[in-house]
Amino acid sequence: MRLGMIGLGRMGSNMVRRLMQAGHECVVFDRSDEAVQAMVEAGAIGAASLDELAAKLPQPRAVWLMVPAAGVDAALGDLAPRLAPGDTLIDGGNSYYVDDVRRAKELEARGLHYIDVGTSGGVFGLERGYCQMIGGEPGPVKRLEPIFAALAPPMASSPRTPGREGKGGTAERGYLHCGGAGAGHFVKMVHNGIEYGLMAAYAEGLSILRHANAGKKAGVIDAETTPLRDPELYSYDFDLADIAEVWRRGSVISSWLLDLTARELLEQPDLAGFAGRVSDSGEGRWTVKAAIDESVPTPVLSAALHQRFSSRGEADFADKLLSAMRHAFGGHLERKE
Amino acid sequence: MRLGMIGLGRMGSNMVRRLMQAGHECVVFDRSDEAVQAMVEAGAIGAASLDELAAKLPQPRAVWLMVPAAGVDAALGDLAPRLAPGDTLIDGGNSYYVDDVRRAKELEARGLHYIDVGTSGGVFGLERGYCQMIGGEPGPVKRLEPIFAALAPPMASSPRTPGREGKGGTAERGYLHCGGAGAGHFVKMVHNGIEYGLMAAYAEGLSILRHANAGKKAGVIDAETTPLRDPELYSYDFDLADIAEVWRRGSVISSWLLDLTARELLEQPDLAGFAGRVSDSGEGRWTVKAAIDESVPTPVLSAALHQRFSSRGEADFADKLLSAMRHAFGGHLERKE
Amino acid sequence: MRLGMIGLGRMGSNMVRRLMQAGHECVVFDRSDEAVQAMVEAGAIGAASLDELAAKLPQPRAVWLMVPAAGVDAALGDLAPRLAPGDTLIDGGNSYYVDDVRRAKELEARGLHYIDVGTSGGVFGLERGYCQMIGGEPGPVKRLEPIFAALAPPMASSPRTPGREGKGGTAERGYLHCGGAGAGHFVKMVHNGIEYGLMAAYAEGLSILRHANAGKKAGVIDAETTPLRDPELYSYDFDLADIAEVWRRGSVISSWLLDLTARELLEQPDLAGFAGRVSDSGEGRWTVKAAIDESVPTPVLSAALHQRFSSRGEADFADKLLSAMRHAFGGHLERKE
Amino acid sequence: MRLGMIGLGRMGSNMVRRLMQAGHECVVFDRSDEAVQAMVEAGAIGAASLDELAAKLPQPRAVWLMVPAAGVDAALGDLAPRLAPGDTLIDGGNSYYVDDVRRAKELEARGLHYIDVGTSGGVFGLERGYCQMIGGEPGPVKRLEPIFAALAPPMASSPRTPGREGKGGTAERGYLHCGGAGAGHFVKMVHNGIEYGLMAAYAEGLSILRHANAGKKAGVIDAETTPLRDPELYSYDFDLADIAEVWRRGSVISSWLLDLTARELLEQPDLAGFAGRVSDSGEGRWTVKAAIDESVPTPVLSAALHQRFSSRGEADFADKLLSAMRHAFGGHLERKE
Repeated sequence: MRLGMIGLGRMGSNMVRRLMQAGHECVVFDRSDEAVQAMVEAGAIGAASLDELAAKLPQPRAVWLMVPAAGVDAALGDLAPRLAPGDTLIDGGNSYYVDDVRRAKELEARGLHYIDVGTSGGVFGLERGYCQMIGGEPGPVKRLEPIFAALAPPMASSPRTPGREGKGGTAERGYLHCGGAGAGHFVKMVHNGIEYGLMAAYAEGLSILRHANAGKKAGVIDAETTPLRDPELYSYDFDLADIAEVWRRGSVISSWLLDLTARELLEQPDLAGFAGRVSDSGEGRWTVKAAIDESVPTPVLSAALHQRFSSRGEADFADKLLSAMRHAFGGHLERKE
Repeated sequence: MRLGMIGLGRMGSNMVRRLMQAGHECVVFDRSDEAVQAMVEAGAIGAASLDELAAKLPQPRAVWLMVPAAGVDAALGDLAPRLAPGDTLIDGGNSYYVDDVRRAKELEARGLHYIDVGTSGGVFGLERGYCQMIGGEPGPVKRLEPIFAALAPPMASSPRTPGREGKGGTAERGYLHCGGAGAGHFVKMVHNGIEYGLMAAYAEGLSILRHANAGKKAGVIDAETTPLRDPELYSYDFDLADIAEVWRRGSVISSWLLDLTARELLEQPDLAGFAGRVSDSGEGRWTVKAAIDESVPTPVLSAALHQRFSSRGEADFADKLLSAMRHAFGGHLERKE
Repeated sequence: MRLGMIGLGRMGSNMVRRLMQAGHECVVFDRSDEAVQAMVEAGAIGAASLDELAAKLPQPRAVWLMVPAAGVDAALGDLAPRLAPGDTLIDGGNSYYVDDVRRAKELEARGLHYIDVGTSGGVFGLERGYCQMIGGEPGPVKRLEPIFAALAPPMASSPRTPGREGKGGTAERGYLHCGGAGAGHFVKMVHNGIEYGLMAAYAEGLSILRHANAGKKAGVIDAETTPLRDPELYSYDFDLADIAEVWRRGSVISSWLLDLTARELLEQPDLAGFAGRVSDSGEGRWTVKAAIDESVPTPVLSAALHQRFSSRGEADFADKLLSAMRHAFGGHLERKE
Repeated sequence: MRLGMIGLGRMGSNMVRRLMQAGHECVVFDRSDEAVQAMVEAGAIGAASLDELAAKLPQPRAVWLMVPAAGVDAALGDLAPRLAPGDTLIDGGNSYYVDDVRRAKELEARGLHYIDVGTSGGVFGLERGYCQMIGGEPGPVKRLEPIFAALAPPMASSPRTPGREGKGGTAERGYLHCGGAGAGHFVKMVHNGIEYGLMAAYAEGLSILRHANAGKKAGVIDAETTPLRDPELYSYDFDLADIAEVWRRGSVISSWLLDLTARELLEQPDLAGFAGRVSDSGEGRWTVKAAIDESVPTPVLSAALHQRFSSRGEADFADKLLSAMRHAFGGHLERKE
């Protein structure tokens, strides 16, 4: 089928490529003429304006937005007046599901459908396919299934779950209609929240291995430092790249994140190219807020989030306060370095 | 080669089977004659006593212990006098690495070698192979490579890490000599610590999805309960089995643990067969203690461990104290259920 | 001065009493005639309706609301039409500061002033005085200082902070104008967030002491339980009431919460009267959400909040998932009790 | 009575002063002659050697050690041969209770008594008195009560806990015999663990207040930063010194630590004199390890400990790993500063 695509960054352009490989036609638009031109050369139908994009799409139209979350409302505002009742808008970015709920209502008043699609797969999506979590009305979602199916990874990319044979549905084909407006981004939000926890688990564990030679370092002995009681028990020099690699085969903790970790540690065992200031991009925060609203305990996901804040120096004032208190009651002075 | 195996529980007997499939000979012993008999029928060489086991092994002998951690010292004590200098003992169970360090010293005094092997793979090891993390002296470890190779998963079980071609080593063959005595169980310990974190991340995230319909429940409105400000934002009824399934394909959080989770949720969507009293088997505790000794922050792994304690009701006294304090300063009474 | 008070629950009626003790006049209203009558007997001026309350107050009026947070908007809606420009409304309850910001704007459009006052002191406030954190426009706050001063604890209730002599301000008199609309409840919100952390710290520590005899209990020895390595190190039977008491004198952790804890433990050493289902009343949640918005790491306050959720069984589904995963990869069965 | 004191640092010398003020005699020794001389000038009986100290004490002797934890075993080794059966040694420092258990056994073999005393009070102890948690045999503890009573704060330093009248015991006099060998330091260990949690709770909460103006800062808008949804809700400039001060009077979170915090914030509102590298001195670590041994959930105390590690840069490698993973799956580059 023919789909409009707005936003030709890395994600948007790769999706267009994957769709065209599956035989779909894409009418593409981007604020950058160059980006449009590049996709035209790859086989897409270019549009120099939103009007042209609307004109080149058959009704009922389907337009996929792949723009930064902060730009979605503006894009919808520009696009909606150019569409007709029955057309469908798809937000494939990282919107907060709360915005989806609002947008679906606003667009419904114009007779437009709104679908929110959380996608996972990152820079590997073109090759591996995109896992898609979808929210919105059943009719428009159903109509767009060929698009979702083309973007999704092949079913054979993972072995079949035993007992799945009779269940049907699209989950094992890599896309899922999760529920009404916002459901797709809600599930994607939690997906990312889980991602924070998984990443932190690997990072903390590997850090313990990295420092397993703590006993070999001549410890500074002063009143402000706790000496190791049994330094000989911490005299291992582990090869982290090898350890991550061996865990990839047969262990309980094998995963795609571990695959990537093994690759990074192989390339750069001491990770000297990174400063360790870890960004967080919204979903982790929203996940924890949702947990709080629901009264669901999430000590692990929360700890992962707060450690990201700490990594960026955001704990500095609190840490200074601790030093100030220690100074006040015990006369303790901070150790330098 | 010919290997002695002591302990024919699920793990030990499966290992014997996998070794024999690869052409190795196993002399097997267990306190249960039945267990020995079953393996003899499967092709193993039975031993009715430790003396017989020792007699049936060529020197230098190699004996693999697959007994509960609490029984290893006793087994070593029984076995050592029956061995000769140059023989090697392998502990393939879940020993604390601190014990390995001690045992290696004790056995060295008798001229015996001690190898600690942390294995991961669980009940799937027979079929998938066992990931093996190995500690001990280089010589004996080298000599036993055919055994480790036979137990390990095939290299092709995971795609090759880009850039690995030139590096050599055995990591991508599923087993790794990690360092001296205790190194194998140290790495396995941290492996399990990571496992706790990964499991908790999935469990917490899926629990948020499970309770995403919190807004649909008629909330009890009293002074002790915080009402949801926007209940309509929590009106999703998610199918967790489908969501776990869709994440298995193409998403950043795909993993073997997720594969298993998808299977469990398919079989039993509400998990009613479980009480939620989660055991912890030692390695998670030791991991956090090692982190503390090394001053390595592990907020996520720690939170996962403490939540396991909580799941078993161990927080009860602390929780009662909180209620008591709230009663004291605010006159708050606990809500019943 | 003369103040209107709406809401004569425990907090409201005690405040009226404290104000009258200081020589102020209170015009009181409550949905319950009985409650009004009781305060009239204590010396207050009763009002049978909001109209009567408004009529009995001199302009510019000042009316203090001491009603449940969920009822404040309704109360403001009833009251505002009966007031005149220049009058001031005070919300002394536990409102979310976000609501204060909105209300102040709405009331400003009618020429009314809105002051938010977070109060701490609980059931002891009548006797000890109420710590007050105040938000709103400077003029009305200034005008109401005699009220705040009367409700506040005496300056001598705590020894003077060294160096405070020259600083001025009202902080050491027990009330503080913290900033514009919402500032009072923002500070109170964080106050309660801190309270959650403090309470959890005591509760966890005392729980460690409570279980310091773990080594004396005949441990169940099975594969699902980690035995204590050195049980003789955990053979203390501590008297928690005595320990809390001794900490009250001279220790770094003495506090008012500890005073209350010592009292509760004295009355009921095993706390058998409590079930351990700990409520959370909103401020703790809002505190953590504010921290997330600000990117401020709050691992401790978050952990305290999530443990409260856990205490009420909200972790059950996640815990069951952990058991399900353990069953899947390791064949582990849950221990019963 | 007459007591020997070894170790005349700040703690030891202040204790000698407080004891002498109460009429006790102290025979003092320190490796520094100057330190001895200073105490002699203050009224103590100097000893130039351990032999002299032993000679100047009547039997059964009582010698209090106030030396760094790392030096206690050496000091006991030097001292024990100079003592006679029935004499008592007191360790008043911050020993690990595990060492107490061992030492008590070793000294018992020589007929010597060993008492462990955890003391809290810091640099204020001379003036306020020392809270003392005591472990050891009942007889020697009983005999030393006059010493403990002199060091303790006066009973009137805190108001009596209601209902305490009939209970008896010494807890409300500021010292407590908690149990056998190690009990004193066990309770002190947990005391410090609680202290970590309390301190973190205040520090985190005040940090939220400190950053409550986050909405006023021109945010960097890029794909790696989550913008505030409602920046106007974070536009407060709070005076932390005033807020800490107001909380000191009448609030639920008043405490001695808050008193000190108010003082520090008054002197140095931005805490610029501190770097925020927070030491941890052993007890916090041991507390969490004890909790793990006992299976007692301590999410809050653990989070406080791990944040201290983080404050010293110990999370760096884990943080770099997170950045590496994000780079690997999403092509994310770290933001510079």
